Amino acid sequence: MSVTAAQGFRAAGTAAGLKSTGKPDVALVVNDGPLDVAAAVFTSNRVVAAPVTWSRQVVADGRASAVVLNSGGANACTGPEGFLDTHRTAEHTADALGVSAGDTVVCSTGLIGVRLPMEKLLPGVDAAVAALSADGGSDAAQAIMTTDTVAKTAVVTVETASGTWTVGGMAKGAGMLAPGLATMLSVITTDAAVDAATADAALRAATTATFDRVDSDGCMSTNDTVVLLASGASGQSPTLDELTAAVTEVSASLSRQLVADAEGASHDIAVEVVGAHSEDAAVAVARAVTRSNLFKAAVFGNDPNWGRVLSAVGTVPESVAAFDATTLDVSINGVQVCRAGGVGEDRDLVDLAAQREVRVLVDLHAGDATAIVWTNDLTHDYVHENSAYSS
Amino acid sequence: MSVTAAQGFRAAGTAAGLKSTGKPDVALVVNDGPLDVAAAVFTSNRVVAAPVTWSRQVVADGRASAVVLNSGGANACTGPEGFLDTHRTAEHTADALGVSAGDTVVCSTGLIGVRLPMEKLLPGVDAAVAALSADGGSDAAQAIMTTDTVAKTAVVTVETASGTWTVGGMAKGAGMLAPGLATMLSVITTDAAVDAATADAALRAATTATFDRVDSDGCMSTNDTVVLLASGASGQSPTLDELTAAVTEVSASLSRQLVADAEGASHDIAVEVVGAHSEDAAVAVARAVTRSNLFKAAVFGNDPNWGRVLSAVGTVPESVAAFDATTLDVSINGVQVCRAGGVGEDRDLVDLAAQREVRVLVDLHAGDATAIVWTNDLTHDYVHENSAYSS
Repeated sequence: MSVTAAQGFRAAGTAAGLKSTGKPDVALVVNDGPLDVAAAVFTSNRVVAAPVTWSRQVVADGRASAVVLNSGGANACTGPEGFLDTHRTAEHTADALGVSAGDTVVCSTGLIGVRLPMEKLLPGVDAAVAALSADGGSDAAQAIMTTDTVAKTAVVTVETASGTWTVGGMAKGAGMLAPGLATMLSVITTDAAVDAATADAALRAATTATFDRVDSDGCMSTNDTVVLLASGASGQSPTLDELTAAVTEVSASLSRQLVADAEGASHDIAVEVVGAHSEDAAVAVARAVTRSNLFKAAVFGNDPNWGRVLSAVGTVPESVAAFDATTLDVSINGVQVCRAGGVGEDRDLVDLAAQREVRVLVDLHAGDATAIVWTNDLTHDYVHENSAYSS
Repeated sequence: MSVTAAQGFRAAGTAAGLKSTGKPDVALVVNDGPLDVAAAVFTSNRVVAAPVTWSRQVVADGRASAVVLNSGGANACTGPEGFLDTHRTAEHTADALGVSAGDTVVCSTGLIGVRLPMEKLLPGVDAAVAALSADGGSDAAQAIMTTDTVAKTAVVTVETASGTWTVGGMAKGAGMLAPGLATMLSVITTDAAVDAATADAALRAATTATFDRVDSDGCMSTNDTVVLLASGASGQSPTLDELTAAVTEVSASLSRQLVADAEGASHDIAVEVVGAHSEDAAVAVARAVTRSNLFKAAVFGNDPNWGRVLSAVGTVPESVAAFDATTLDVSINGVQVCRAGGVGEDRDLVDLAAQREVRVLVDLHAGDATAIVWTNDLTHDYVHENSAYSS
């Protein structure tokens, strides 16, 4: 059900011909209210696509009526003309829906540096408007896929004494996944009745702990966008903590699905850092490990090469993370292969071939803070997909 | 001739059985003077191998008599016992040469997290001492190779009105090549008569501009060491600038050879950033591009994917490099594929298949500073070599 699990939303996904395969490539999500609350977070890349520039303005007032998304073209690095294309897309969508263009979020994904074929996109928007349905969440999730092999959706329903409310979402992304944010588009909807400030705070807390801690290949996109829309249709008014918990659960599920479908990966790797003096330090150390091509290639070869973990940990500056290199411990899938910076248990006790998931635990012995960052292994298929597929 | 091109040096390379292949794995370089000036730079990794800890102490006084090097084991993450192994190696070498252990630099390279087989290494040192020769430079260069497919050596001879002096060097390294330093060992010798401060200043200037700007795979080693030894045997006393120029030329040649022999690479990529407000900014932007797996995979596929260059440039924080994303220009092999942050010349004009070398030029339009960082493409063979070879 994805974005239409919550009450007050309709969605659609249609094929406008932007993809040469003829697969669905235009998605639309509409908030029918009564509220039109919206919040969004965007890529921290300084090179941003036209739809990111546009949508930042749209959500600045905490309101949005619709999100129109296309795959088959990122509309990034397309100059002033590309921005006009986004503007036209928003106006066309808004006119068809009877809402304001200034309340219409636009998201695009696909190849950078190519103009969108507007003569195909705008009729596709019309078709999506005509196809809008309270059951359209799955179609929308299909239409935003690029190299994804499966659509990613998640739903959390919260039952309380006074009634139930729901958070549902969809996401796309299978490569160029990196912090701040992963390469991805995601729309999350809720029928909770919350104000814009609450929606914004909940979304930022949720993405910081989930999407921001997925680092498939260290490459940050120009188009990343996560939008949260609240319709208020359930009549339920959760607290900030309650909303944050539900949005975090949906975001965690979606981001875990991104890792599981990462381009060409054969392993999902959770790098957990404990004993850090701060959460930021734990994240920095975990990220250093998730960015090590050598370690990621070793995992592909089912080699529990803890030396490559330590050499990655050692690249984090002292100003960022406190630790004494001679006290570092590393476990892989529960086997403590490195103890006090030296040789621990026999690395042959670690069987990486048995399952897709790999757990790396690094203990810095410098405090109580922890963090987990997810990544994937570096495989032949990753190289193949990203050398043959031009995006 | 490598490290024995300059007068006053002997060297050797022998097989001690550290490598299962039976190939040479112990190298020795001896400075016969009259001077025993030495300088060295080491990895900036906080996790360092025992020989790095040892050798930092050795060169602290600006003097060294010998460098003993082994491949077939990094002696990294081996605890206090590993440090004792390094100490024993230095003492054993010094005793055989009749010098002080405190003047004996030790370098190791190979698998992290495994103790060295001292019962093989020490007899290997004896054999190397017995084989020392003024023609031994090539043998030494062979003995420090790990996954290198060719030995790397370089020689510069400077002729002046008063006589000639020479700088020669050897290096190893084919993977785990990253800034501060690349994964590598290098010994550079000169028969110039210079003091320790001059040697140190020349070496630091040379490595900053050469070895530090090689970033094959973003992975920083625990063992990187570059040692400069000066014998004074030529009787010539160049200025700091003259020595820096010659050492830089040797270092540039050696680091270029490292890139050309990088594990599994099919392209050498020079990322040149111009128009930066500072050299540090130029290096940071260039490094962001050389660390993009997506761009490196695209180059492997002979795809001039400038969108991946721009998305990498955009990850550099404003506090590090000033630029306006809408004025960025990118050329690949002379074709300006991106102009003012948008589409430039037709990307199909770029032929990456024709040659191994790729030149990427990024103009930030924010100043006059420039820098070049070298990297390689991301290939199937890189993944294969680093998943199958455990180092």
